This record gives sequence, C-alpha cells and structure tokens, in this order.
Amino acid sequence: MTDKTFVFGHTNPDTDSIASAISMANLQTQIGENAQGYRLGNLNQETKYALDTFNVEEPELLSKLDENSKVIMVDNNEFSQSVSGIENAHLQMVVDHHRLNLSTIEPVYCIAEPVGCTSTIMYKLYKQEDVTITPKMAGIMLSAIISDTLMFQSPTCTPQDRITAEKLSKIAGIDLYNYGYKLLEAGTNVSDYTADEIINIDSKDFMYNKLKISISQINSSNIDEVFKRKAELETAIQKKIEKENIDLFIFLVTDILEADSKVIVLGNRVDIFERAFNIKLISNTTLLKGVVSRKKQVLPALIESINQKIQF
Amino acid sequence: MTDKTFVFGHTNPDTDSIASAISMANLQTQIGENAQGYRLGNLNQETKYALDTFNVEEPELLSKLDENSKVIMVDNNEFSQSVSGIENAHLQMVVDHHRLNLSTIEPVYCIAEPVGCTSTIMYKLYKQEDVTITPKMAGIMLSAIISDTLMFQSPTCTPQDRITAEKLSKIAGIDLYNYGYKLLEAGTNVSDYTADEIINIDSKDFMYNKLKISISQINSSNIDEVFKRKAELETAIQKKIEKENIDLFIFLVTDILEADSKVIVLGNRVDIFERAFNIKLISNTTLLKGVVSRKKQVLPALIESINQKIQF
Repeated sequence: MTDKTFVFGHTNPDTDSIASAISMANLQTQIGENAQGYRLGNLNQETKYALDTFNVEEPELLSKLDENSKVIMVDNNEFSQSVSGIENAHLQMVVDHHRLNLSTIEPVYCIAEPVGCTSTIMYKLYKQEDVTITPKMAGIMLSAIISDTLMFQSPTCTPQDRITAEKLSKIAGIDLYNYGYKLLEAGTNVSDYTADEIINIDSKDFMYNKLKISISQINSSNIDEVFKRKAELETAIQKKIEKENIDLFIFLVTDILEADSKVIVLGNRVDIFERAFNIKLISNTTLLKGVVSRKKQVLPALIESINQKIQF
Repeated sequence: MTDKTFVFGHTNPDTDSIASAISMANLQTQIGENAQGYRLGNLNQETKYALDTFNVEEPELLSKLDENSKVIMVDNNEFSQSVSGIENAHLQMVVDHHRLNLSTIEPVYCIAEPVGCTSTIMYKLYKQEDVTITPKMAGIMLSAIISDTLMFQSPTCTPQDRITAEKLSKIAGIDLYNYGYKLLEAGTNVSDYTADEIINIDSKDFMYNKLKISISQINSSNIDEVFKRKAELETAIQKKIEKENIDLFIFLVTDILEADSKVIVLGNRVDIFERAFNIKLISNTTLLKGVVSRKKQVLPALIESINQKIQF
C-alpha cells in the first residue's frame, strides 16, 4: 500500500471545500490510490445539512501535516489558507477555481478553471477517469455548486456550473430547486451562534503587498436580523484584528435573493475598502448593491485599490 | 471580432515554447477565437530546423505587451521569464509543465501537468476540443517532445510523452527516431555562434530567496569541442553576471546520448551549487553524471541547498 494522500480544502471550510475533498478522495480511491478526505475546521450548518441529507460521514479534522506528506489541495491553492505544515508537504495535485497564488518547487498537476465551484471541475474529472458518480457523491457535489453559486445567482456562476448541477441532481434523485433553497436556508440561521462564531463561519485571510486582509461572509435571508447584533459583532471583529494583526477586516452579510451585501468594515486600512467601492462608510457600514462574491467582486476591487495607492 | 489573444512561451524560446505557442493559437482559432502565436526572442537552430522541415512559418517577435492585452501563457508561468508588460496583461490561460510560480488577481484557466513537454498537454487539449491535428501541427508538436525529453532520455519524460510522440509521428508521416536525431543534431552545432550567443541560446533566470540564479543549457554531441572555448565562454558569463547582477550562473553542456552534463559555474554564490551536488568545482567546472534536466535535477537541488543554508 502506498502512503496515504491527504485531500483537503481551505480552513474555515465551506460546503465546496468539504464536498470536493470527499469526492476527490473517493475518485482517487476508485482509481486505486490510497487517499482520504479531511476538513480543516468545524463544519457550518449548511454543510452539516448537506452531509445529513445524503448520509455522508463528516471527514476527520486535520490540524497539522507531517513533513513530506502526500497532499492534494482542492478548492484552494494558497498556503496561507491551508493547514500547518503544508509548506513541507509533497504537493501532488491542485484542483481549484480561485485565483492562483502558488509557488512549488517541482512541477505538479494543477487544474484550475474560472468556474463557480470546484465540484463542477470534479464532475469533469470523474468523467475523464470514467468513474461512476454515486447518488451520495452527486448529492454533496450538487450541494457545493448550489452553495458556491448561491443557486446560480453569483457572478462567479458559469453555464457549466448550472449544467453540471442539473446532471448531478438527476443522479442524486432530488429536486434541484426545492433542495437548494432548503440547503441555503440551513446556512443562514445564525441565531444560535456567538458573535465570535459568526465572524469565523467563513472567514478568509489574504496577504497582499504586506497587508493582512480578512474577508468574512455569511448568507442571510434577513440582514436586519443579523445587524441587530452589530455592536456585538464589532467587538468580536476588533478583538480578532488586534489578536491577529489584521489591517483590514470586512464582514459581509449577503442576502441571496436580493443579491446585495451589507458590510461591517474595521481596521486601520478601511481607506482601501472605501477607495475600492468609492463610498464613505457610515458607522463602519454600507450596503453594497449587487455585490455577492468575495472572490470575484470584493477581492479584485481591494487589490486594484491597493495598486492604485502604490502608483500615485 | 473579439480582441486578439497573444499566445507565447518563455524568453529565449526553445522548440516547445514555439511549438506550443503556434499549436495553441491554432487550436484557439479552430474553436472560433482570435489568437496569434508569438516568439519572445530569436529561434535556435533546432527550432529553425523543425519549422523548416514542416514548412511552418516563424512566429512574429513580441517585445512588449500593451496594458490589458489578452494573454495565454504556454510552456511557462513565471512573469520573470516572460515579456515586458505581462504584469498588466489580462491573463486568460496557462498551459505548462514547469513548477508553478504564479500569482493572479482573478481566477484563470490553468492546466499544468508534470509531463516532459507542453506539447504533450496540447495534444490532449486538441482531443478534448475535438479539433483535428494537421500533419504540420503534428510535426512541430512532435519536435517539441523530442527536444524537451531529449528523445525520451530525460528524467522529465513520462510514458504519456512517448505515447503522444508516437501518435504525432504517424499524423506527421515521418520516422520518429530518424527525424528525432537529425533534429537534436541540428541544435548542437554552435560553431557559428559567439560565446555570448552560446550562453544565451537557452538561458533562464530564477529568483529564489532574493537570489538571482541563471541556468543556461545547450545540447552537444561533442562536449570537448564546446569546452575548447571555455575561456571565451567564462568571459561572456562574467560579463553577463556583472551586467545583470546574477548571484549564480550555471552553464550546462549536455551530451544527449551519454546523458551527462559538463558545467561552468560562476558568480559569488557558487557555494550553493557545490552544496547542491556535494562536489568541489575545479577551475569553475565539473562533470555531472546522469544530470540532463535543468528543471527536474538542477533547480530542485539548488533550492534545497539554499533552504538548508537558511535552516542551519
């Protein structure tokens, strides 16, 4: 038996990070490799709902990697968003749909596509390897596409995501829209969470030009309900900023149906955010009409704003 | 008509960089895109021989990119080895077989595989897109595989490269081995070159840990013949080191049939090279038995040597 390959997505895992880790480990196993899917953090309510629905076991938690471990990164290619020890791992493969920010010593397999979801790429890989997708696998891959594309409403969504989701819903034997809204709804209920838990449900750190930027996002069908806890959330964000030396923290509360996001922005570099969206924050907040994607709308605007500042 | 997409490999182009730029531009054109292949420097004798044999036109020289130009990078993904202006281009796609060292703002298509040649991946893309490979295209793609794998003798060569080369030789209608040795032989004759030209035929720069490392490689069926010009070559290398602030310059003369390389190593950090291969240079030179690959053998050894130095 060869050494086990560790398969995982990013820290603060979302449904795609979990689904693509499980489906990639399964694909590798089916083609005769020794692979296991892991999670790099606690599951959110949405992901739990997906795993429960399709009766798929929660993957084991991975908190650090031994040196020279064989690794497949899915739904992520930035070491800063990965597990401790990743720098000294033996990276075999990357499958992702995010920007590339990767430096390897040797050539590796990398399949990155600007689609809405890693699971959409995973579907293609199953077809290429001629491996059957079971209803269970189809169910969690479908859940990931619904989650990442916000039911095809995100600007990151491509026709390929939609077509793949439709095919997967047939394999899984469920009604796509009926299940989809239940899944997204499961992810929006944060009433049982502390403020600290809420800002960490889906938070990602980015290093750019020596600046540490954290962007945290939750979906909600009722933004006002979340903003009733604004003071409490601000305190939690401020604590995190101080503890982790964050220059700019952006907390997005996204209404899926309206396709808008209301934000709380804190840190000593809120100027980057204000310049990026050409707005002035009032009491640390503003409503971003039509903004739902951290990756495609928020991060590129911030990077452009930083670059402008450097030039002038 | 959409804006033209510029397709190109690395500076100091080798046969794969030219062949994959031409074959990718052709593939894009066949699927209805507006794309053109370019070269980022003068062609070497081997590449000229390949283009002449299959009656393929030399691509235009590209010396700088306008801002926001649409770009496909082939056989390369490092901005430091690319054209001036690449940082502000609109990168669409990367197809490569080298280590990844790339940071993009938005998600892009990236297909990287640890195979011996980019043209091997290009063959797969033609199949995926169901586009016919003409005998001309097959001929130059085949030439690239022969060149990059040194007729399947390089440690970078995979079974996939060999199988693809055999298929391409049938499409091109030529005898693989007979043509292959003629092609490699065409690249080894450097008697008409100045020392400065020789060290720049196929030279690549790498930045690692703030060190600038240049690795230049030529193939030769007669290493001794090349080393008769050692003094002259050393002078040219020394000039280049001073002009370009290079910390370590490695010039490899590789005998394809023997699968060995004799080197000239200069710069203020030859210690990195000596530690990497656990040898002591004599008059700036040594014979590296079994070493033929810059990418798979030389560069990883250097990086490990640098990392060791940092740790201890």
